[in-house]
Amino acid sequence: MVVDKKNSEKKYSIGVDLGGTNIVSVIVNYQGKIVNRLKVPTLAERGKEATIKRIVETIHENIVQSSVVPGDIIGIGIGAPGPLDIKRGMINFAPNLPGWRDVPLRKILEDEFNMKVVLENDANAAAWGERCFGAGQGVNNLVCFTLGTGIGGGIIIDGKIYHGNNYGAAELGHMTVNKDGPRCNCGNYGCLEAYSSATGIKNRIKNRIREGIKSDFLNFDEGKLFESLRLKSIFEAARKGDRLTSIVVEEAISYLGIAIANITNILNPKMVVLVGGITNEGNKLLIPLRKEVKKRAFYSNYKSLKIVIGELGGNAGVLGAAALLWISTDRSC
Amino acid sequence: MVVDKKNSEKKYSIGVDLGGTNIVSVIVNYQGKIVNRLKVPTLAERGKEATIKRIVETIHENIVQSSVVPGDIIGIGIGAPGPLDIKRGMINFAPNLPGWRDVPLRKILEDEFNMKVVLENDANAAAWGERCFGAGQGVNNLVCFTLGTGIGGGIIIDGKIYHGNNYGAAELGHMTVNKDGPRCNCGNYGCLEAYSSATGIKNRIKNRIREGIKSDFLNFDEGKLFESLRLKSIFEAARKGDRLTSIVVEEAISYLGIAIANITNILNPKMVVLVGGITNEGNKLLIPLRKEVKKRAFYSNYKSLKIVIGELGGNAGVLGAAALLWISTDRSC
Repeated sequence: MVVDKKNSEKKYSIGVDLGGTNIVSVIVNYQGKIVNRLKVPTLAERGKEATIKRIVETIHENIVQSSVVPGDIIGIGIGAPGPLDIKRGMINFAPNLPGWRDVPLRKILEDEFNMKVVLENDANAAAWGERCFGAGQGVNNLVCFTLGTGIGGGIIIDGKIYHGNNYGAAELGHMTVNKDGPRCNCGNYGCLEAYSSATGIKNRIKNRIREGIKSDFLNFDEGKLFESLRLKSIFEAARKGDRLTSIVVEEAISYLGIAIANITNILNPKMVVLVGGITNEGNKLLIPLRKEVKKRAFYSNYKSLKIVIGELGGNAGVLGAAALLWISTDRSC
Repeated sequence: MVVDKKNSEKKYSIGVDLGGTNIVSVIVNYQGKIVNRLKVPTLAERGKEATIKRIVETIHENIVQSSVVPGDIIGIGIGAPGPLDIKRGMINFAPNLPGWRDVPLRKILEDEFNMKVVLENDANAAAWGERCFGAGQGVNNLVCFTLGTGIGGGIIIDGKIYHGNNYGAAELGHMTVNKDGPRCNCGNYGCLEAYSSATGIKNRIKNRIREGIKSDFLNFDEGKLFESLRLKSIFEAARKGDRLTSIVVEEAISYLGIAIANITNILNPKMVVLVGGITNEGNKLLIPLRKEVKKRAFYSNYKSLKIVIGELGGNAGVLGAAALLWISTDRSC
């Protein structure tokens, strides 16, 4: 690998997480220390041009607030929802960003900031963040599950992000775990995401409510059902044996365990890192998960595997995006 | 990579497939042309020492028959059933080779033949064979399913065999495809192998016979039920709508399709190569498989994927084992 000496001397990089709800921008040194962080609503409903303008303004403001000299910044890394054309730096389409079709975001930001820009799938960026600065430091062979509204993933092989043949790898949420399971947003039936994502869990509870099943513990606003169901309360109620939620939560954990067991048998990674809202459950999630994986994976693969919760919380994606810039330098993690 | 110049000039290598039933040994040039091939029964029931002796004698005989000068042979590659300690060249345990525990096969053969010996998992060897000389020539990112008595797999990433953290990767037959499915030999429930391997298919038909379901087309020896059920006849009967076999065959294909779809979403390979007995079905297998994968995998991942049947038939493993020797030379495929 050719080491980029000129850029190796630079001290900072910018990481951006472009989400459907918020834009987060951070200025980070190469050790992963956040110098300045900004979070603004995406306001995606105002359209593509307005959102691009907000991204640009947020990064500018981030630089100004940080007092970092632009010449000391190596570049900008963006974690964005797919499908992306990573090679050409384009967002082809984003379900949560209405009107975004084949947007050359890399070129737009390169022209604006006159620095190197790297675009990456948001789940890959989160995996890379945990690999560089979080739970996976020094681990060259890890798989990260991003457990949020949807479920994504990132695969690190030989210390590099694994992209597959045409940048479509690590769609871990779309592993079929039950061939006759519920329909998933992707069009398939019985995907992991339909069982174990926040949306999947809430949808399945909603269906049970429709079937007339009442909760023994939960109170929620029937009108704003979806919003008023909180993951934490759902898990708490389930642990008390609640009729409405316990089966749904049990299945969510069981299928996630199966997906991790499958990854364990297919990829034999050294570590599986879990990030996202559901990981707030901590050991209450990890203990049954490990049990399921132990039951299903080859013992030698299971024994050598660490299943852990990420250490960077909501910053895994932005930190990983920022760390992308150091990859071809001697400061790479 | 350092190129081994001395050995690059040698012309031949030996490939051995050590199976529970047969030992196959071939002498091959670096382009994959078989100069001489020997197949002898393993006679595993006679014990470890006797089998090792048979391996040694078969290789010696193979060299003699080929008229190749030993000095022209770069070394011996062995494909063996797992679990293996590839790094130390040891067979830890082999269900089909009674009494084999921590056998340092590499060392034994190195001492006997005074040439380089490489040990590899038999399914990885088959994947490497198809990659070097068969359907996957020039494809750097492929996944091979070995569909036989059991189901194994090999994953090629960046033109190299992917082993995982401790040589346990690519156990594709032990993907859980139905959490409440039949018990598998590995101890888990609902593995792909329990549905789509030859043994899985026959076991499931046997269970249906026990339930009193009769075949509309098949005649088989009730006493020697397992042996007399032929995969080809089973598939033929199923296609005619046979009560006994059609559901079993349908599920075997459907779950194999799900497993390939999962690999497509996880690894986004350029090619999936299928080898083993069941692939004699040709397009009758491929067409419904592709349909299942299309239904379940991300479209861009599916569109860029080739699902093919291997071109080397039963020689994939021995050819791959022989090709392992060239990996660190400038003759590597």
